[in-house]
Formats: sequence, C-alpha cells, structure tokens
Amino acid sequence: MKLRPVLAEALGTALLLAAIVGSGIMAERISGGNVGVALLANAIATGGALFALIVMFGPISGAHFNPVVTLALTLQRESGAKWLLPFLMAQVAGGIVGVWLAHLMFDLPILQASTKVRTGLGQWVAEATATFGLVLLILLGVRMAAASLPAAVALYIVGAYWFTASTSFANPAVTIARSLSNTFAGIAPSDAPAFIAAQLAGALVAVAMARLLQTSRAK
Amino acid sequence: MKLRPVLAEALGTALLLAAIVGSGIMAERISGGNVGVALLANAIATGGALFALIVMFGPISGAHFNPVVTLALTLQRESGAKWLLPFLMAQVAGGIVGVWLAHLMFDLPILQASTKVRTGLGQWVAEATATFGLVLLILLGVRMAAASLPAAVALYIVGAYWFTASTSFANPAVTIARSLSNTFAGIAPSDAPAFIAAQLAGALVAVAMARLLQTSRAK
Amino acid sequence: MKLRPVLAEALGTALLLAAIVGSGIMAERISGGNVGVALLANAIATGGALFALIVMFGPISGAHFNPVVTLALTLQRESGAKWLLPFLMAQVAGGIVGVWLAHLMFDLPILQASTKVRTGLGQWVAEATATFGLVLLILLGVRMAAASLPAAVALYIVGAYWFTASTSFANPAVTIARSLSNTFAGIAPSDAPAFIAAQLAGALVAVAMARLLQTSRAK
Amino acid sequence: MKLRPVLAEALGTALLLAAIVGSGIMAERISGGNVGVALLANAIATGGALFALIVMFGPISGAHFNPVVTLALTLQRESGAKWLLPFLMAQVAGGIVGVWLAHLMFDLPILQASTKVRTGLGQWVAEATATFGLVLLILLGVRMAAASLPAAVALYIVGAYWFTASTSFANPAVTIARSLSNTFAGIAPSDAPAFIAAQLAGALVAVAMARLLQTSRAK
Repeated sequence: MKLRPVLAEALGTALLLAAIVGSGIMAERISGGNVGVALLANAIATGGALFALIVMFGPISGAHFNPVVTLALTLQRESGAKWLLPFLMAQVAGGIVGVWLAHLMFDLPILQASTKVRTGLGQWVAEATATFGLVLLILLGVRMAAASLPAAVALYIVGAYWFTASTSFANPAVTIARSLSNTFAGIAPSDAPAFIAAQLAGALVAVAMARLLQTSRAK
Repeated sequence: MKLRPVLAEALGTALLLAAIVGSGIMAERISGGNVGVALLANAIATGGALFALIVMFGPISGAHFNPVVTLALTLQRESGAKWLLPFLMAQVAGGIVGVWLAHLMFDLPILQASTKVRTGLGQWVAEATATFGLVLLILLGVRMAAASLPAAVALYIVGAYWFTASTSFANPAVTIARSLSNTFAGIAPSDAPAFIAAQLAGALVAVAMARLLQTSRAK
Repeated sequence: MKLRPVLAEALGTALLLAAIVGSGIMAERISGGNVGVALLANAIATGGALFALIVMFGPISGAHFNPVVTLALTLQRESGAKWLLPFLMAQVAGGIVGVWLAHLMFDLPILQASTKVRTGLGQWVAEATATFGLVLLILLGVRMAAASLPAAVALYIVGAYWFTASTSFANPAVTIARSLSNTFAGIAPSDAPAFIAAQLAGALVAVAMARLLQTSRAK
Repeated sequence: MKLRPVLAEALGTALLLAAIVGSGIMAERISGGNVGVALLANAIATGGALFALIVMFGPISGAHFNPVVTLALTLQRESGAKWLLPFLMAQVAGGIVGVWLAHLMFDLPILQASTKVRTGLGQWVAEATATFGLVLLILLGVRMAAASLPAAVALYIVGAYWFTASTSFANPAVTIARSLSNTFAGIAPSDAPAFIAAQLAGALVAVAMARLLQTSRAK
C-alpha cells in the first residue's frame, strides 16, 4: 500500500533526471558551441518530459519529484505527513539513478562529480526566487487550477531555465543528483548546499505567501 | 478583503517582469550574437512564465498584470471599477520591483535606465496592433473561451514578440518597468510615452470591436 | 446578423497574415543568416498567433480563415452554404490587408509583389499533402475532438512548416496574400495558381477520406 | 467494420513518418550545419504533427501508430486481440509509404536505404529507456489521464529526441521505415533489429511496471 506512491516518486524523479542530464549532454554535443541553442533544447526537452511524467505519475503519488514540494504540501496539509520521509528518500535515490542512466545512455563513465562552479549572491537569489514561484504555483494551483497544473509547472520550468541566473534547479533532489554529473547540467558538490538552502528559503516564503493569499479564497 | 487581489497583481507583474528582463539578459549573454536565438528564448521563456502566472493568480485577481487589460475589462464591466486604481498602481510598482529582482539575480546594478531607441511610425503601429489583438482576445475569450484563455494569451505573446516590429510590449506597466533596464528588453524612457499612447489606442479600438462582435452573440 | 461572422473571418485572417509575414520579416532580419533559426521562429510565432485567433474568433465564425476549410466544411454540411461566398471574400480581402499591415509595421513599402520562386512537383505534392492533413484534421476533429482542435490545428501548422518542402501554405487566401509580399514568406504570383490547385485537390481528397472514415463512427 | 481503424492506423503512421523524415530533411538543409538547430526543429515538428494525428485518429483507432504500443495495450486488455496483427501490418506499411511521400515532396529518389550507423550499448539502453517511458505513460494514462494523454505523448517524444543518445525511435514501425531513408532521420537497416529488440524489451518492462503500479489504484 505504501510502496506504490514511493515507487512512483523514485521512478519519476529518475526519469526526470535522465531527461535533464541526458538532454544537456546531447545539447552540448551537437549545438556547435552556441550555448543559447543548447539551453533552449535543454529547457524544451526538460519541460516536455516533466509534463509527461506529471501526467503519468500524478494520479499515483501526486508527482512531486521534489523534496521542497513534498515539504510545502505537507506543511499545507495537502500531503500526508507519513509520506514526507519516504518520498524524500525516493526522490534523492531516484534522481541519482537517473543521472547514472543518462551517463550509461551517452557512453560516459557512470560515477562522476561535477566541477562546474555555480555560486554567488545572484545565483542564490535566483534559486530562492525560482523555488518561491514553483512552490507558490503548486500550492495555489493544487486547489484552484488542478487541471492546468501539469502544463503550468512544466512551462514554468521552461521559463525559469532562462529567467534565473542559475538556470533554475529549484529542487534539492535535482541539485544533489546533478552534482554527480560533470556535464552541461552539473553543479560542483561544494556549491550544492548553498543552492539547497536558498531553495528551502524560497519554499518557506511561498508557504507563507500561499497562506496569506488563500485566507479569503472564495472557492 | 481588498488586499489580496491587489497583492496578486503586484506579485504576478513582478514575476512577469523578472521573467521578461531576466530571460532577455540570459539570452543575450549566451546566444553567441545570434539575436534570432536570443529572441526565440526570450519569447518562449516569457510565454512559459506568463502561462504559469495566469494559472497561479487568475483565480485570485483575474491575472491582468496589465493596466490596459484592467481598463478594458472595467469598461466592459467584467471587472469592478473599485479595482481600477489599486490594480494599476500594483502593476506599475510590481513591474519595477520585478526588473530590480532580475538585475539582482544577474549581478547587475539595480538602478538603471535604458538607452535602447524604440521609436517611429512602424513601432507605434506595431504596439497598437499587438495591444488591439491582446485586449480583443481577452474581451472575447473571458466569456466565450475561458478555459483556453491562459494558453491563448501566453501563446499570443510568444507570437507577438516576433510578428511586431517592436517585439510587442502591449502593456504600459511592462513598458515603464522595462525603461528601467539597460539590457536586451529595455526601452529608452523618452520613447516610453509614445508606446503607451499607442497601447491605449489599440486597447480602446479593441473595446469598440468587442462590443460590435458581441452584440448578437448566441451564447 | 450576417455581418459579424464575416467580420470575424476578415479580422482573423488579417491578423493571421500579419503574424505569418511579420514574423517572417523579423526572423530573416535577426537570425544572422541561419534560415533554420528563422523558420523555427516563423513557425512558432505562426502557431502561437493561430491558436490565439482560433480561441478568439472560433465561437463567432468557426475561425476558418481558409477558403478550402470553409469549402470542405460546407461540403460536409458542418457550415451553412450561405456563408461560403461571404467567408471566401472576407478571407482573401482580410489576408491582403494583413500583409499590408505587416509591411507598415516593419517600415516597408506597402504594395509589393513577391519574386520568390516556389514551384515543381515536390512542392505541389507537399501542398496537397499539407492541405489534406489539415482539412482531414478539421473534418474529423470538429465532431470528435472539438476541445482539442484549436491546439491541434496550430501545432499541425507548426509541424507542416517543417515537414513539407513548401513550408505548407495549405490555404488559398494565405497564398494570394503572401504573393503580395517580397519578404521571407513570399511566393511569386505566377507560382500561386498551381499551389492553390494542389490545395484544392488535397482538400477534396480529405473530404472523401473523412466520409470513408466516419461512416461507421460509433460516437 | 474492421477496415476503418486499420485504415486510420495506416494513414496516421504514414503522415507521422512523412513528418519525421520530411522535417529531418528540411532541418538538415537549412540549419547551416548547426545540428542542434536541426534536431530542435525536427523534434518540435514531430511533436506538433504527432499531437494533431492523435487528436485526428484517436477516436477511430486509438492512434497507436506503434507496434509495441498496440502489443502492450493488447497485453493489458485495453485493445482487442483481433486488432493486433492488422494494426501491426498497417503501421509498418503506412510508415514505409510515409517515408516515400517525404522523399517525393523533397525531390529525392523514392527508394533509398540508410547508411547511418546507430549502434552500441548506449544507444540500445536509450531505446529501451525511451520505449519504457512511452509505453508506461500510455498504459497509466489511458485510464487515469485520458484527456491529457495526446499532449503528454507528443511532448514526451519532443523530450526524448534530446534526452536519449539514439534520438528516441521507440517504435519498430518507425525504425523499419526510417531504415529506408538515407537522410537526417535514417538508420542503417543492419542496425534496425537491435533497436527493435531493445524497444520490445523496454515495452515488456513497462507492462510489468504498469501492473505493479496499478494494483492498488484507487480510481
């Protein structure tokens, strides 16, 4: 009974990371050095895969694929507290397996650590902003616009790849997993904790904002 | 009671401008001088973010994010007159904060003024045309196609970035805010008033056209 | 009573042509000679605008914007015969005005004639194929998948810009209008009649195929 | 009675292959050697056409266009066993005709065989992964998210063009047909059997996973 939603979170996060990291590798290889073309492909591929994964696993687990989303939904009592820890572990473990799968598909060494520096105030503000927007979208949308939410989440991420200086990780499980890939989508492991702290801060502000905006909600 | 829709307009317009200006900065930085790639990324990122913001804030405030949209909906009695002034102030203030947030994320000086010249008959016709289409879409769609309207508005803007000579500002709050950013999406402050006048003209023609087209509406 | 749907067809086709021709001009100007980037922008801008226009005018006129679509729907008794001639005239006249509007927006001479050669068996097969698919989509979808049809039509056109050798005009009004623009989207007037003949052929085969496929339709 | 769904599968797969191969030819011709731009166009065009084809033919045949999808749905008793062989033959024959149509449109010799090498463990893992995700999406979505399934399938394919090392064939009929085109989308005939075996393996794992995930499905 408890296994299936957890399996859905693990499998969905694995496929999401395979899509993020895999499309990043492909994009860097074939875009002839034009990083704009590469990031456009990376964003569109991520958004397409994410929409499909939300449609696929949403009815089973809610399709969080993201520890701060699970945390925020738990704080708002939209998700049961018993799922918090199992989902977090499934998301982190699934994400790492997804990165390894991407490496296997592209004939790269499975075990890697990123050396890509992503740090500084701008990047942290970007992560907090991106996560704030993502979590607020989900908290408001889950009640008021459920049918549009899968498309809205996927398109938000496509946009956030471009409008944040950090290309919008906005997800601790994704951050940890991408620290294990020395490719286009990577982040140096030593830069990951600050990203995760910024994501947590953005998510908590989003919870507070959602409570403020929802108090007088008509329906 | 009155605060929450106003807060939603301010927050939504802030995030919209962060997306427009932020993705413009990112696009210019990494597209290797190919303005086509940059504008494609800027358009897709704006459209993705706009769709998410309409889904997010639509049930709270209607997700106008645009003074001429609020004005047109008020003239058509689709929006209460008491919201007109508070929404306009929230949109302008929110838009400016959003531009500053984009500058902060990309490690740029917060306070700027654009030097990008955008003027001439072609550009003004473009702004009037773009705003006419946007406002007519919203006025017709709000009654007859509400479920498709968020996607239609977002995709209209993606198209209008390309089919107008001005890349389609179509929004006085956006115009004012973008005059405070000397980046890809900027407009010289001295060129802003003519843009806003053209937008107003386009919006008023759209109101007249909507009244003409809706008189005999069957449903 | 009769005026409003006709006005919607004229206005919609005008805005559609402004979008096709305008985004073509913009795309050619800023894509640094990479025709792939230009056509990608042209296709995405056309699809975005087309979706918005179908949402906007669909409830008023059906949003045909295309003489062979009106013809096919009339043959299938999905559209009243009294609309056939008024719609055709509105579509052709609207399309021409839309091209002129694009020229005005981009500071080009209003009156032009294209010199772009588009001819040969491959192009004609392409036009017949593209129109066959478009008309069949509309004839089958209008009954069986009405809610998805605006998105399906817009995305079909995005695809057809790329998968046909002619970049898929698939519309006699569009073909006539584009013969009056010596820009990216143009077609030499002498090449237009063969395109229109191929479009008609494709549309008629689609009508026959729709009848064959619908005979035993369960719902 | 039996003919119409079979005709829909043949026609749909033919148009799908015309779109895949045609947009690949166009993309390679006009993208100035930037393979990233070409694959982006190829992916977007394929996704757009696929969405339209699913909307068009879904109510008639289910819009499988893919032998392993038909096989998986038959194993799950979502599709009648009597359709299995007729659908498979229609998909393979239709796909081949579609490739020939693309060649005709682009003034190329009709009969070709690809010389493009696509082989190795990474590519096979990629095909198995891509097919696993596609089939699992369809098996879970057909019951739990039917309204979102056409968009989810199309966007999954857009993503999978980029996140798999093989650009995601994920379809034996597509693999056979593309082996007959020595263009951008081709695959050497000698490399096709291993791709098809990997696709079958991915599909069978997806059937097992769907059964595991659906056992305790609430609705």
